Amino acid sequence: MNELGYRELIQMALREDRVDLDVTSLAVIPPEAKGTAQILAKEEGVLAGLPVAAAVFAAIDGEVEFAPILADGARLQPGALIAILRGRLRSILAGERVALNFLQRLSGIATATADLVERVKDHPVKILDTRKTTPGLRGLEKYAVRVGGGTNHRFSLAEMILIKDNHIAAAGSVAEAVRRARAAAPPFLLLEVEAETEEQVREALAAGADVIMLDNMTPAEMRRMVELVAGRAKLEASGDVNPGNVAAVAATGVDYISVGYITHSAPALNLSLEVTMD
Amino acid sequence: MNELGYRELIQMALREDRVDLDVTSLAVIPPEAKGTAQILAKEEGVLAGLPVAAAVFAAIDGEVEFAPILADGARLQPGALIAILRGRLRSILAGERVALNFLQRLSGIATATADLVERVKDHPVKILDTRKTTPGLRGLEKYAVRVGGGTNHRFSLAEMILIKDNHIAAAGSVAEAVRRARAAAPPFLLLEVEAETEEQVREALAAGADVIMLDNMTPAEMRRMVELVAGRAKLEASGDVNPGNVAAVAATGVDYISVGYITHSAPALNLSLEVTMD
Amino acid sequence: MNELGYRELIQMALREDRVDLDVTSLAVIPPEAKGTAQILAKEEGVLAGLPVAAAVFAAIDGEVEFAPILADGARLQPGALIAILRGRLRSILAGERVALNFLQRLSGIATATADLVERVKDHPVKILDTRKTTPGLRGLEKYAVRVGGGTNHRFSLAEMILIKDNHIAAAGSVAEAVRRARAAAPPFLLLEVEAETEEQVREALAAGADVIMLDNMTPAEMRRMVELVAGRAKLEASGDVNPGNVAAVAATGVDYISVGYITHSAPALNLSLEVTMD
Amino acid sequence: MNELGYRELIQMALREDRVDLDVTSLAVIPPEAKGTAQILAKEEGVLAGLPVAAAVFAAIDGEVEFAPILADGARLQPGALIAILRGRLRSILAGERVALNFLQRLSGIATATADLVERVKDHPVKILDTRKTTPGLRGLEKYAVRVGGGTNHRFSLAEMILIKDNHIAAAGSVAEAVRRARAAAPPFLLLEVEAETEEQVREALAAGADVIMLDNMTPAEMRRMVELVAGRAKLEASGDVNPGNVAAVAATGVDYISVGYITHSAPALNLSLEVTMD
Amino acid sequence: MNELGYRELIQMALREDRVDLDVTSLAVIPPEAKGTAQILAKEEGVLAGLPVAAAVFAAIDGEVEFAPILADGARLQPGALIAILRGRLRSILAGERVALNFLQRLSGIATATADLVERVKDHPVKILDTRKTTPGLRGLEKYAVRVGGGTNHRFSLAEMILIKDNHIAAAGSVAEAVRRARAAAPPFLLLEVEAETEEQVREALAAGADVIMLDNMTPAEMRRMVELVAGRAKLEASGDVNPGNVAAVAATGVDYISVGYITHSAPALNLSLEVTMD
Amino acid sequence: MNELGYRELIQMALREDRVDLDVTSLAVIPPEAKGTAQILAKEEGVLAGLPVAAAVFAAIDGEVEFAPILADGARLQPGALIAILRGRLRSILAGERVALNFLQRLSGIATATADLVERVKDHPVKILDTRKTTPGLRGLEKYAVRVGGGTNHRFSLAEMILIKDNHIAAAGSVAEAVRRARAAAPPFLLLEVEAETEEQVREALAAGADVIMLDNMTPAEMRRMVELVAGRAKLEASGDVNPGNVAAVAATGVDYISVGYITHSAPALNLSLEVTMD
Repeated sequence: MNELGYRELIQMALREDRVDLDVTSLAVIPPEAKGTAQILAKEEGVLAGLPVAAAVFAAIDGEVEFAPILADGARLQPGALIAILRGRLRSILAGERVALNFLQRLSGIATATADLVERVKDHPVKILDTRKTTPGLRGLEKYAVRVGGGTNHRFSLAEMILIKDNHIAAAGSVAEAVRRARAAAPPFLLLEVEAETEEQVREALAAGADVIMLDNMTPAEMRRMVELVAGRAKLEASGDVNPGNVAAVAATGVDYISVGYITHSAPALNLSLEVTMD
Repeated sequence: MNELGYRELIQMALREDRVDLDVTSLAVIPPEAKGTAQILAKEEGVLAGLPVAAAVFAAIDGEVEFAPILADGARLQPGALIAILRGRLRSILAGERVALNFLQRLSGIATATADLVERVKDHPVKILDTRKTTPGLRGLEKYAVRVGGGTNHRFSLAEMILIKDNHIAAAGSVAEAVRRARAAAPPFLLLEVEAETEEQVREALAAGADVIMLDNMTPAEMRRMVELVAGRAKLEASGDVNPGNVAAVAATGVDYISVGYITHSAPALNLSLEVTMD
Repeated sequence: MNELGYRELIQMALREDRVDLDVTSLAVIPPEAKGTAQILAKEEGVLAGLPVAAAVFAAIDGEVEFAPILADGARLQPGALIAILRGRLRSILAGERVALNFLQRLSGIATATADLVERVKDHPVKILDTRKTTPGLRGLEKYAVRVGGGTNHRFSLAEMILIKDNHIAAAGSVAEAVRRARAAAPPFLLLEVEAETEEQVREALAAGADVIMLDNMTPAEMRRMVELVAGRAKLEASGDVNPGNVAAVAATGVDYISVGYITHSAPALNLSLEVTMD
Repeated sequence: MNELGYRELIQMALREDRVDLDVTSLAVIPPEAKGTAQILAKEEGVLAGLPVAAAVFAAIDGEVEFAPILADGARLQPGALIAILRGRLRSILAGERVALNFLQRLSGIATATADLVERVKDHPVKILDTRKTTPGLRGLEKYAVRVGGGTNHRFSLAEMILIKDNHIAAAGSVAEAVRRARAAAPPFLLLEVEAETEEQVREALAAGADVIMLDNMTPAEMRRMVELVAGRAKLEASGDVNPGNVAAVAATGVDYISVGYITHSAPALNLSLEVTMD
Repeated sequence: MNELGYRELIQMALREDRVDLDVTSLAVIPPEAKGTAQILAKEEGVLAGLPVAAAVFAAIDGEVEFAPILADGARLQPGALIAILRGRLRSILAGERVALNFLQRLSGIATATADLVERVKDHPVKILDTRKTTPGLRGLEKYAVRVGGGTNHRFSLAEMILIKDNHIAAAGSVAEAVRRARAAAPPFLLLEVEAETEEQVREALAAGADVIMLDNMTPAEMRRMVELVAGRAKLEASGDVNPGNVAAVAATGVDYISVGYITHSAPALNLSLEVTMD
Repeated sequence: MNELGYRELIQMALREDRVDLDVTSLAVIPPEAKGTAQILAKEEGVLAGLPVAAAVFAAIDGEVEFAPILADGARLQPGALIAILRGRLRSILAGERVALNFLQRLSGIATATADLVERVKDHPVKILDTRKTTPGLRGLEKYAVRVGGGTNHRFSLAEMILIKDNHIAAAGSVAEAVRRARAAAPPFLLLEVEAETEEQVREALAAGADVIMLDNMTPAEMRRMVELVAGRAKLEASGDVNPGNVAAVAATGVDYISVGYITHSAPALNLSLEVTMD
C-alpha cells in the first residue's frame, strides 16, 4: 500500500475536522511558535499506520518534520516512543487528532489480528480478514491486518469467485452455479463455495471448488470435513470466531480461519501525542 | 444529517468494493432475476444508519425498492425485521456488504451510546461524544451517537474554543490563553478549558471559561470540583469512562461526560441481509 | 486559514481559465524565456490574499519564485510594491489573471471592512460579516474580513443556533423555539434570536438568548433596546448598514454590527501585475 | 449554460455552509413540517440565475417543488414575485442562503450590464465582459452578462489569440508577435492586439490583427483611431469604463467596449426569500 | 459493468468538450426546438457501449428519450439502425460527439475481438485481452472485449500474481520467486509465470505455476510446450498475435491467446448520428 | 499543455490499475531493491507524451529519477533509447504499464500524423485533427497531433462556430443560420459552414463564412470549389481522408485537411521498458 491508497481519505478527514480553521490555535498560538511532539504508546499492542500519520502532517504543512522511531509491525509496550515531530506548533496541534484517529484504529486492528495469530501459532493455519471493513478504509484496514500477521482474503467483489447460497439458489444447484461461473467469469480467478452442511461440502468438492468455506460449523464438524476433503480443496472456517475459540478451530486442520471482528469490532489502541513547546 | 453528508463516502465504498465488477453474480445470476431481501437483527441493540443503507442501494440501481420497517433509534431484538428490499438480484447482492458495513458500524455506535445513557438515566447528565471518530465518517458517527441518545460535542476544530495544556503553555497561563482567545477568535463561540487539577479549575473559572473539562480526575475529585464551581461554569468529565464507571461519574454532579470509546471502539452490531429469489 | 482551504478552488479557477492552453503565450513566448513581475497597487486599500496568489503560481509551475514584499493587512498606497515574481514567462502570464482575480476580490473585501472598522473606532463595537458570501469562496472571504479588522460571525449553519422568524413561527413562540433548541441542539453552541420589535427583544431576553439580533431597527430603537437589555445579552445590529450610517449605529451602544455588503458587494481593489522580460 | 456548468460549485457551496448540519432547524423544526416560500425582489434590476437557485434546492431535497414565476432576463421592480417553492421547511431554510447568494450575485451582474447596455443603446456598439471574474464562477458570471444584454469576450486563454505588451516585448515587435501566433497557434482563432498608442494601432493593423484593443485611450484618441482604422479591423475600447463615461466612449464609433467592473465589482441585487409555514 | 464504472469519465468527456457552451447551437437552435435522431452503422462490426451512449445524453438532459433498437453484441451491417433518440435538439447535438466517441471506440474493440474469436472458433482456445488499455477507460474497454466474445485477463495488478523476468531476476530464480509469492501474496490468487524458453517453462511447471505465459514463441515451440506441459498448467500464448497468425497459434493447443492490439490499436467502428428536426 | 491537463487522468489510470496493490512485486521484490530502466523504441515512429510518462512515475514515487534522452517530436528508430529511470524497483514496475499506455497511444497519434504531414509536404496545406478523440484524453491527443506536425482544429464546442446540416435545417437556410450565429454567439469566434454541394458552398460564401468545410467531395469537386471560392474563405477538406488519398486531396489546393483517424484509429506505437536490477 503506497500513498495513492489514502491521499483522498486524508483530505476528507482534514476537511471534516476543519483543520484550516482551528479557532483555538489560531487565536492563542503565535504563527511562528515551534514545538516538538512525541507519539507514545499508552498500552500494549502492535503499531500500524505510521506512514499515514506522517502523511497527515505533510498534507497540512510540508515543513513539519516527522521522524519515525519505530515502524509498522513493532510490538508496543506502554510508554514506547513511536515517532518524533518538529515544526510549527499550530500545524502539529491541527493534525494531532486526525493522525491519531488513523493510527489508533489501524493499530487496534493490527493488535487484534496479532493476538489471533499468536493463538494459532502451533497450527499451519492462516488468519484471514473479510470484506467487513469500514466504508472508505478497506485498503488501510487490510494493510493493518497484514501488519498484524494476518492474511488478506479478497479485497473486493472482483478478485475471486465466491458462490453463496443465493447464487446456488439462482442457479439451481452448486454444480450449475460453478459451471456458470467457470464458463462466464474471468478465467484466472479462484473459485470458493460457501457450505453449511456436509452435503454441500460434497457438492462443492464434486463441482471442483478451489476453496470451500465451512460456514458456522462446530469444530467437530469441521474436523470431519477436513477428513472428507482430504486436501482436494482448501478449507476456510468462518462464523463467530473469536479469541476464545480460535485455537479450537485451528486444531481442526482447516487451512484458513476468516474473522470479521478484527476489522469491524477491534477496539482502537490507546496512543497519545505529547507536545512540548520549544 | 441529510444525504449531502454521505454521498461521496458511499461512492468511495462502492468503488473500493468494485461493485461494478461482481464477478460471481455477473456470471451466475441472470440479469433479469429479481429477488426480495430482508435486513434482520441478529442481536440486541439500537438501529442507526438505515437511510445510508437505502442510499447505497439507490446509488447502485435506482429501481431497487427499499421499504424501511423500523426507523433509526428503534430498539432491536434478535430476529427483528428492519427493512425489506426488492429488485434485481444482482443489484441487491452487489450492495449487500457495503450497506451492512455502514449499518452495523453505526448501529454499534448507537448501541454503545444507548447503553451508557441508560446507565446514567437517574442523573441530569449528558453523554457526549468526542472527535475520536473514524476518518471520513465523523458526520455519520456523530449522527449515530445522537440516535443512541447521546449528545454531540464539537464536530470539528471550528465550532468551539477548547484550550488545552499546549495552548496554556504557549500563552503562559490559563488567564492569558483565555484572554487571547476571547480577543482573537470569532465571538460567538463557547470557550472550554481543560483542567487536570483543582488549581487549574480555579484558574479556568476565574478566567471566565464557559465549560471546564475535568481531565482524568477521580469521582471524588470531580465531586469536589462540582462543589467548588457551583454552577458558575459547565463541567465535563473526561478520561477513561466506560460502562463500569459511568454511573459513578454521573453521580458526582458533572453536567457532561465525554466518552471516546463509543466512536473509536464500539463493536459492530450483528445484522444480516437474507435474500430470497422471486 | 491554511492552504487546505483553497487548493480545490485554485484548481477550478485554473481549469476554467484553461491555463494549460494559453494559445497566445504558447505560440509567441519561447518556452525557456524568463521574466520578472511586480504586483503593484493602483489604488488605496488593504491587501488580502497574497498567499493565495502565491499558491496560484505554485500550482502552475513549481519553479516560479514568489517573493512577498508586503503582507496581508498592509495598507496600500497607489504604486505600492506588493510582491515580486521570477520564473518562466509563460507561467507568469498564464497565472496572472487568476492570481489577480483572487487578490483583487479579497483585497476589496478587506478594504471595505477596514473602512467600516475605521468609522466606528471610537466605539467598543465589532464589525461582523454574514453568510452572504460568494458560493465556494466563504473561507477566503471571511479571512479577508479578518484581515480588514472585522470579526467573523458564524461560518455556516453548524456553529451557532440562530432562531429566525420561521423558526419562531414553527415553534409557536420565541420561548418554545429556544426551549427546543436548548433541548435538542448540540450543547456547546451559543444561541441568538432575531428580533424586529421591542416585544420580541423582551421575549428573547426572557428565553435566555445569548445574543439578540436587532433586525432593521432605527438607531433610536436600538438605543432603547441597549438600555432595555442592559448587558444581559449581547446585541447585534443588522440591516442595511453602510459607511454612511455605521457610526450612528455604533453610537447606540450595540455590541456588534453585521454588514452583508462587505462580502457581497465590495468592489474589487485595483491591482496590477507588470512583467519585464529578462 | 446547462447544469453541467454549476453542479460542482453548488456542491462546494452546500458543503461550506454545512447544509447537512443546520443545527437550528434540526432542533426547532419538525422533520415533517412543510412550508411555502416566495423569492421576491427588493429593488429594481434584472433577474439572472434562477435555474441555479432551483438546482440548489434540488440538490438538497428532490421533493421541494420550485415554480418559477419570472425567467432570467426579467426586469424586476421592488416586490416582484420571482418564484414559489413548496416542500419540507427544513429543506427550504437549509438552502435559502446558498440559493440567494447565487441569485443576488448573478442578478447584480445582469443589472450592472443592462444599465451599461441601456446607456449605449443609440450606438451600434456591444458591451463586452472580461476575464476579471470570480474564481470558480466564470461560466455563471458570463452567463449573467449575456442575460443583461452584454456580450462575452473570450471565456479563457484558449479561444482567442490576444497579444499584449509582454508578448510584443518577447517577440521584439508587433509584427513578429503576430507572425509567430499565426504560424504556431491553432488556425481557427481570431487575433487581437492590445495597443496604447497610435503607433501601436498602425502596427497592429499592418500586421493583420482582426481586433485591436484601444487600451486606456481618451475618447478623442479613440475617435481618431476609428477613423484611422476605417473598418479594417474591429476596435475594442478598454480601461476604466463606467456608467458615467460609457456613452462618450460609445460615441467614438468603436465596435466593442469591454468593462471589468460588471463582473468584479457589481453590487449584489437585493432579493429575499419569504417563508410561510403551511 | 454498471453505471458506477463510467459516470466520472462521462463527466470528464462532457467537460473537455465544453458541452455547456456549444456556441453554435446556443445561437442557432431555439431552446424549445425538438428533434429525433438515429444512431446508424456505417460499416460492418459488433456493437458495444450503447448504455454509455445513453448515459451521455442522460447526463446532459434528463428529458432526452433514448430507445435502443439493438443491444451490445449485435452484429452490425452498414445502415443498421442502432438506437433512436428524441428530445431537445440542442441537447442531442451537444452530446452527439461524446456519445459517438465512446460508441465508436468500444465497438471497434468489440469488432476486432470478434474477428479473432471467429478465426479460432474451431479450437478450444480463448482470446484474452491485456492491461494495454487506454488510461481511464480500462473497465469500458474490457467490457467491450467481453461483448466481442473475448475473455478478460486480469483487470489490474491486484487480481493475479504474474511473475515476469524482473521478478525472477530479483528473486534469483523462478522457484524462489514463486516461493516468495505463495508465501507473501494474498492466498486466493492464481499464479502465472512468464517464460521465453523451454527451460523457463520447465522451471515454472516445477515451481507449480497455475498458468504459464509462452512469450514470443513460434507456433512450433508452443506446440512442443503444450506437449511438455501436458495439461499440468494452463498455457497462454503472448506476443505479436494478429488476425493473420491467430489461427496458427490456436492450432498449437494452447489454452489462451492474449492480444494487446484489440485494446491499444483497434480502429474505431464507423457510426453516425443522423438528426431530423420535428 | 502543462501538467494541469493530465494530473487527474493519471490518478484515474493509477487507480484503475490498482498500482498501490501490485501483489506480485509486493511479495517478490524487497522494498529496498533498486533498479534502472530504459524506455526503448521497438519500431519507427514519432515520440509523444514523455512528460506524461515522467509524471506517472512521479505520482507513484517522488524518488524515482526520470532522465529523458529524447524529447517529444523525436523521430524514433527501432532500438532508440528514449529515457532512463532509476529508483525503487517496486515503483518502476508498478508504473510501467500505465506509463507505456500513455506513451504508446500518444506516440501512435504523433506517428500517424507525421506520416500524413510528410505526404503533403509539397503543398501549402495543413493537416487538422477533429473532435473524434478518446473521452477524457482530448488535451493529450491534440497535443500529440501537434507533436506530429499537425494542426489543431477546435478543442471543443466553445471555440468556433461550426454550422452543420442540422443547424441549417433548424434555421431554414445557410444565410439565416449564419445570421443568427453572428448575432447571438460570442463575437470573437470564427465561423465555419459545412457544405456538401457546390450550391451550399456558394451559400456559405455569400453568407460570409470564414471557413467552409468541403464534406465528402471528390478531389475533382474540391478543385472546382477552390477555384470558385478563390481565396474568399478558407477551405477545409473532410471525409475519409487516409494516407492513400491525402496527397491527391492536398493537390486540390484546399487550405486544410481534417482527419479523424489520427486520433480515433491510430495504432499504438510499440515501445518497451526494460528493467535491470542494480
